[in-house]
Amino acid sequence: MNPYFINPKLKEECGIFGIFKHPEAANLTYLGLYALQHRGQEGAGIVSSDGSRLRIEKGLGLVNDVFKEENLCRLTGDCAIGHVRYSTFGDDVLKNVQPFLVNIAQGWLAIAHNGNLTNAVRLRRTLEQSGSIFQTTSDTEIILHLIARSQKKEFSDRLIDALKQVKGAFSLLFLSEKFLIAVRDSYGFRPLLLGEFGGSVVFASETAAFDLMGAKFIRELDPGEIVIVTDSGMKSIKPFPPSETKQCIFEHIYFARPDSFVFGANVYEVRHALGRQLAKEKPVSADIVVPVPDSGVPAAIGYAEELKIPFQMGIIRNHYIGRTFIEPEQAIRNFGVKIKLNPIRAVLEGKSVALVDDSIIRGTTSQKIVHLLRQNGAKEVHLRISAPPTTGPCFYGIDTPTKSELIASSKSVQDICAFIGADSLGYLSLEGLLDVEQKNKHNFCTACFDDRYPLLPED
Amino acid sequence: MNPYFINPKLKEECGIFGIFKHPEAANLTYLGLYALQHRGQEGAGIVSSDGSRLRIEKGLGLVNDVFKEENLCRLTGDCAIGHVRYSTFGDDVLKNVQPFLVNIAQGWLAIAHNGNLTNAVRLRRTLEQSGSIFQTTSDTEIILHLIARSQKKEFSDRLIDALKQVKGAFSLLFLSEKFLIAVRDSYGFRPLLLGEFGGSVVFASETAAFDLMGAKFIRELDPGEIVIVTDSGMKSIKPFPPSETKQCIFEHIYFARPDSFVFGANVYEVRHALGRQLAKEKPVSADIVVPVPDSGVPAAIGYAEELKIPFQMGIIRNHYIGRTFIEPEQAIRNFGVKIKLNPIRAVLEGKSVALVDDSIIRGTTSQKIVHLLRQNGAKEVHLRISAPPTTGPCFYGIDTPTKSELIASSKSVQDICAFIGADSLGYLSLEGLLDVEQKNKHNFCTACFDDRYPLLPED
Amino acid sequence: MNPYFINPKLKEECGIFGIFKHPEAANLTYLGLYALQHRGQEGAGIVSSDGSRLRIEKGLGLVNDVFKEENLCRLTGDCAIGHVRYSTFGDDVLKNVQPFLVNIAQGWLAIAHNGNLTNAVRLRRTLEQSGSIFQTTSDTEIILHLIARSQKKEFSDRLIDALKQVKGAFSLLFLSEKFLIAVRDSYGFRPLLLGEFGGSVVFASETAAFDLMGAKFIRELDPGEIVIVTDSGMKSIKPFPPSETKQCIFEHIYFARPDSFVFGANVYEVRHALGRQLAKEKPVSADIVVPVPDSGVPAAIGYAEELKIPFQMGIIRNHYIGRTFIEPEQAIRNFGVKIKLNPIRAVLEGKSVALVDDSIIRGTTSQKIVHLLRQNGAKEVHLRISAPPTTGPCFYGIDTPTKSELIASSKSVQDICAFIGADSLGYLSLEGLLDVEQKNKHNFCTACFDDRYPLLPED
Amino acid sequence: MNPYFINPKLKEECGIFGIFKHPEAANLTYLGLYALQHRGQEGAGIVSSDGSRLRIEKGLGLVNDVFKEENLCRLTGDCAIGHVRYSTFGDDVLKNVQPFLVNIAQGWLAIAHNGNLTNAVRLRRTLEQSGSIFQTTSDTEIILHLIARSQKKEFSDRLIDALKQVKGAFSLLFLSEKFLIAVRDSYGFRPLLLGEFGGSVVFASETAAFDLMGAKFIRELDPGEIVIVTDSGMKSIKPFPPSETKQCIFEHIYFARPDSFVFGANVYEVRHALGRQLAKEKPVSADIVVPVPDSGVPAAIGYAEELKIPFQMGIIRNHYIGRTFIEPEQAIRNFGVKIKLNPIRAVLEGKSVALVDDSIIRGTTSQKIVHLLRQNGAKEVHLRISAPPTTGPCFYGIDTPTKSELIASSKSVQDICAFIGADSLGYLSLEGLLDVEQKNKHNFCTACFDDRYPLLPED
Repeated sequence: MNPYFINPKLKEECGIFGIFKHPEAANLTYLGLYALQHRGQEGAGIVSSDGSRLRIEKGLGLVNDVFKEENLCRLTGDCAIGHVRYSTFGDDVLKNVQPFLVNIAQGWLAIAHNGNLTNAVRLRRTLEQSGSIFQTTSDTEIILHLIARSQKKEFSDRLIDALKQVKGAFSLLFLSEKFLIAVRDSYGFRPLLLGEFGGSVVFASETAAFDLMGAKFIRELDPGEIVIVTDSGMKSIKPFPPSETKQCIFEHIYFARPDSFVFGANVYEVRHALGRQLAKEKPVSADIVVPVPDSGVPAAIGYAEELKIPFQMGIIRNHYIGRTFIEPEQAIRNFGVKIKLNPIRAVLEGKSVALVDDSIIRGTTSQKIVHLLRQNGAKEVHLRISAPPTTGPCFYGIDTPTKSELIASSKSVQDICAFIGADSLGYLSLEGLLDVEQKNKHNFCTACFDDRYPLLPED
Repeated sequence: MNPYFINPKLKEECGIFGIFKHPEAANLTYLGLYALQHRGQEGAGIVSSDGSRLRIEKGLGLVNDVFKEENLCRLTGDCAIGHVRYSTFGDDVLKNVQPFLVNIAQGWLAIAHNGNLTNAVRLRRTLEQSGSIFQTTSDTEIILHLIARSQKKEFSDRLIDALKQVKGAFSLLFLSEKFLIAVRDSYGFRPLLLGEFGGSVVFASETAAFDLMGAKFIRELDPGEIVIVTDSGMKSIKPFPPSETKQCIFEHIYFARPDSFVFGANVYEVRHALGRQLAKEKPVSADIVVPVPDSGVPAAIGYAEELKIPFQMGIIRNHYIGRTFIEPEQAIRNFGVKIKLNPIRAVLEGKSVALVDDSIIRGTTSQKIVHLLRQNGAKEVHLRISAPPTTGPCFYGIDTPTKSELIASSKSVQDICAFIGADSLGYLSLEGLLDVEQKNKHNFCTACFDDRYPLLPED
Repeated sequence: MNPYFINPKLKEECGIFGIFKHPEAANLTYLGLYALQHRGQEGAGIVSSDGSRLRIEKGLGLVNDVFKEENLCRLTGDCAIGHVRYSTFGDDVLKNVQPFLVNIAQGWLAIAHNGNLTNAVRLRRTLEQSGSIFQTTSDTEIILHLIARSQKKEFSDRLIDALKQVKGAFSLLFLSEKFLIAVRDSYGFRPLLLGEFGGSVVFASETAAFDLMGAKFIRELDPGEIVIVTDSGMKSIKPFPPSETKQCIFEHIYFARPDSFVFGANVYEVRHALGRQLAKEKPVSADIVVPVPDSGVPAAIGYAEELKIPFQMGIIRNHYIGRTFIEPEQAIRNFGVKIKLNPIRAVLEGKSVALVDDSIIRGTTSQKIVHLLRQNGAKEVHLRISAPPTTGPCFYGIDTPTKSELIASSKSVQDICAFIGADSLGYLSLEGLLDVEQKNKHNFCTACFDDRYPLLPED
Repeated sequence: MNPYFINPKLKEECGIFGIFKHPEAANLTYLGLYALQHRGQEGAGIVSSDGSRLRIEKGLGLVNDVFKEENLCRLTGDCAIGHVRYSTFGDDVLKNVQPFLVNIAQGWLAIAHNGNLTNAVRLRRTLEQSGSIFQTTSDTEIILHLIARSQKKEFSDRLIDALKQVKGAFSLLFLSEKFLIAVRDSYGFRPLLLGEFGGSVVFASETAAFDLMGAKFIRELDPGEIVIVTDSGMKSIKPFPPSETKQCIFEHIYFARPDSFVFGANVYEVRHALGRQLAKEKPVSADIVVPVPDSGVPAAIGYAEELKIPFQMGIIRNHYIGRTFIEPEQAIRNFGVKIKLNPIRAVLEGKSVALVDDSIIRGTTSQKIVHLLRQNGAKEVHLRISAPPTTGPCFYGIDTPTKSELIASSKSVQDICAFIGADSLGYLSLEGLLDVEQKNKHNFCTACFDDRYPLLPED
């Protein structure tokens, strides 16, 4: 069996950033990645270009762990792209940290990818059989080989040639000695935004990256758009056949930063509105509304506001968690959750609590949190979820468990409530969710809620 | 000049944890320190004892950076004490990371100290002149030399002998082959609590350390109390002359975790009540109440609740900050603040904002936050502080700037408001602060607000 | 310009070792590389196979620096190949440390190479133009791409297909899940020997690797021979057209270990005989014979013996040199040489010295040594070289300077003597050198002495 | 029991270097230590002084491993002392690496020590009982505490006060903001030499350190001499009562570098003469004389010369040994020796060999070497030792096994020969040894050969 077999169930969410012609290109990319840290905490990398040479620095861990004065200063040049990566699998994980930098007959080329290809297995098999040697286990590398193999002469034609062969979700940045190119797939699964900083073109997955440096947000790339930036200026092309738009609604529900603007809306506002909508659909008579921090906070505020119930931060989140944590051998009840979350007895004691979270995946964490609240004196715990039940995995770049591991794929809301041990459980409806998105409501991928997948993975 | 001169202006806040006779002593101490991480992020150490030998592991950085499987497993034995440290000064900072472990004629002895001695300079000079060789620049080491020099025979007598010579703030843990000893100074400046975990005695600076492992909180040590734990059991003595109690009120205002119980109260509840009291004293007519996250959140909730103004998380805090951050050379406006805090324009735009924080030290950070809110569309910014103006430094273990650097030491509230650029500024009154502490109100040190120092540093 | 351009002047000498089906395959490869350390001190790597997976560990530095318990133990499996590398160039030098491990359509494949290809530039250009993506700047990788691209079905046919396209010097080891293959090019430039250890087949560049572990030396591979070892046994094939044999005579003069047996002779014996021959050709009347340690020792003993002049270790070599050495800013005369060599005044004072070395490359080191001897009291210094003048570079795997940097390419023996500052200078004749090799005399490459290159590098 | 108990059987050999007022003080100390590397390979340290502050850098490993550009450059100032250390024991070995740097009431003080105190246990007990806290397990630290405790006012008086209380072997260097002081104990057990480099005073354990940098050797310190170097110049005092001189003869036999001059003679010359003397006392009729490299080489040359038997380097020493070596689990015969030494079959086959070494300690290594020679074809092996049988341990700074582990303490020469498996065994006589030292013959400690210890360790 091919040891590089690509497991179709393992995908990654990521963040990307790029800048063209700025004297501090690498430093600003570092800042941009820092602002996108929540999109990928397992690895980070930057490639810079000085117009004749590309340099790369990357590593495992947080942006701040990977980049120090000494390696940032090696990233000379006025153009750069960067990447933060969430999940990693296989042994030689550093190899899979992006950007990838290769030398092809036409020169140096770097790529950074947010998304997931659905026909990667088949494409890789074909390329390997005709003699391509892969350096990673990542689907992203396939795009590089397709470009290297293309018989077209111009790079943009080679790129289009290659991208017409791949299917799936891809927001991409390419860097060479001559250009910075941004690509968003025809469905627009993942965000990609264009900005301007001190006269330089910048790209990022979210506006939070622009805010940190004070860059101006210009617009989102259209689905299917390719933006080519060279010394001669910026050019936009749309070489792919038109397609329906399928933006990932989970970016709004959970994934993006609340202070970011993506897919035409501010994320905090969407979540706050989801909380109000949830209050209308699934009200409860409780003494206090408590969020599961941090992601549940905006919806909980909206929920409390709509129902005029006091909002309390009844659970404290510990933010010092690193990637590894040494668990004591002696079983400590609900250890995994307690490392992150500590309920406040003085707030909870004797109270009926409306607990607000954004999703339930396997149900085990929710079960532990509900248990912890009761241990700390909560009289009743009513769990409210600011999204519909998650019934299917994502094939477009979010790392989700298999269908069978998703508790809502096989259990009714009532059964989930019993499993979790809550006094009541209420999910937001799909209609309610889409109503909050207003005029944009038809442009979202909701496959993880309704099983309507725009594309399925191919073997 | 003595190169080890102890700068009386540089002190440190710290957290300590200890456990006696538990098979996973070191692992649990690691957990305890992890829960106390907010009390000291510059260094951490653990000393364990197996009844015949003490072992030490320590390092610079967060608990998770310092301790890994490989060094934790070297900390064999069933007793342990640990320490997290905030500020470090001088060159050989690792040497100053506690616990300190020394060998004296009576055997091994380890010490962990939260607090600051006010007569350290004089004591050290005397000891050095009679031939003591110091290993660190820390005031804590003085206690060890005084014990080593004592002419008493029993360790407890040597300890009392030594502690009668030192003045200042000291919550202490001692570990030897035979005992674990906890000490709280007669003023009770710093917290120290007693708990029980699976039949073992545990000590910690805050209850949050007990919560994480599921230990039971028994009681706080009394000011002036020494608790000696040996194989024969636990013994409490109070060998010092009685004194008035002077618990640090800043632990309640800012320093301790909101989910901790210290000085007879839950911290979140105190802060929430401070917010309500602030609303009564300094109300404002605003569209929304926004906290400076994270420490300003409980007071902001209370403030909003009292005034029935919507509470909004209008500023997002980035929690991925490491100790070092590479600043771009090109000046980015308000860079330092923007790395941590990002305002949400969609929430703030056109709004009159009541901004709630717990303190103003130099005023420069508040100035930047107010400016950022305005940049992001806030129409008015009314700053409310859930404590009185900080007018003096702390000599009892909190690292504060000098008096002249404290903006409230020389400027009126009106001038501070002008400096910060807010539309209005309101502080909580000292009376209001103490009223919230209720029957405990006479037991607090408020010297940083009213200049009534129980002890002054000696040269 | 292609940034991966292969500089035809930069080549490396290396050592390789392999073992098939031994429970301690990786540990024994580590020992084998350790014994071959003199052949490459800049980097080392090992790939192991457990029959279904290949694992790699490599690093910069000495074998002992690169391999520790923790990475050796990750190299599971009962087959392994290893490589030590001398010179490194380019930026990402770790990438160029061998073995290389890749995954091709047929499975995992690892390669270790001692030698240098003379048509690498042309082959790489062709491969890149048809879409191959290279991972390194090494000529060795070309062989992997040629194998991946071959249309043959069986691996051995793909291998032959690939090797028929490359020219130059190559002693190779290949490892896959199924086989260990050893290859020596048709000229036999570099050594490669077959041995047996505890029933397992072993390969090494020199017998010293066998001696260390107590393996039995069986025979040298023939030029042009391929030995394939699988579970079914060992098979030898010779698929290439016959060629004249051109073994590198510098292995005998300087490169190989004196305790090794390569190219049909023991190296110490050859060097001792070269010293005797040199004494016959270029005798001198001196008080003592002193070698330039360590490589000049055997020839100096032979030289002294033949002339019946006392042999003295009048120069002490310091063996603690690491790769980097911090030079004081203040010029210390002959610093570079003195770090390695210290003459003994008590031995040299007032003496006429016959100084024996194996070669003169640029002349500057010899100049410094002669000067040091005089500084330490030597009355006369007569330099004797146990090889002919080095007049041309090597294209077959030894890292030499360009022709113009070789002092003997442009200066007469008399001029070299004057430059070096010796009282007399005598080289061994080419005839004398070859006479020592006896019946083997026609099977050596002596191009660096006589400019008769069997193959020239192609652009 | 006191865990810092000083084991009287564990001592260390060391090397020291110091320089006063040179702009490159730290770099030159690094060079000096590098030249003294053979005297201690387990750890190295340097303390520098800029006249107002002392700085320290130290680490485990070779000089080249410990010192890099980045830590050398932190050693600012124009005065420095350094130390290389051989054996280490206990857990926190880095703490025991010298120089030690402490701050006492009088200011900074650093010490570097070659030797061993014989009354350390008693002195330490007394100091600890009066309240001194020790930082290390080293006897050297005792001297610092004695100085700190002295009631004298001037540093030189405090020093003399302290040194009058210690017994044993001590060549010492002290560095403060104001002075560099060199001390040699009254017996003169260990060497200490004075030199001059570019107008600056330098001290070193051997002249090889002077040679490397081109410093001029002035003279050896007298036993009992203290040399004080300050800005006002150099002053020599001899405050101790006169004693007989007892220089360590093992420095000449084995320990010092052959290119060094110590105790009034060049070491190579002494060893060469020992070989000639050995030939006169214990001749043999053999085909070749082979040294055990490297230390046996000079004696073997002398032995061969005297007997007119060909000298051959029949055993090759591998110089790439690091401190740790991963041994394969499968027993490899004579592995430990083969890692270092490889016999050359082509040289040994069918020969009667006179094997020359400088000492036999436990006998096991000699046994393995003799066995290896036979395995490689030697017909006869006649072992000749260029010193008398080692019958007792050293208490003056050389790390030796206990008396019972020394094979010559309990076995006759005949029995040792049988144990080793040699055809004959001959030791040099004590008279022969001393004769070679000529007029100096009464000034040597030969206690390890004749049990006449000048001082015995006290409990």
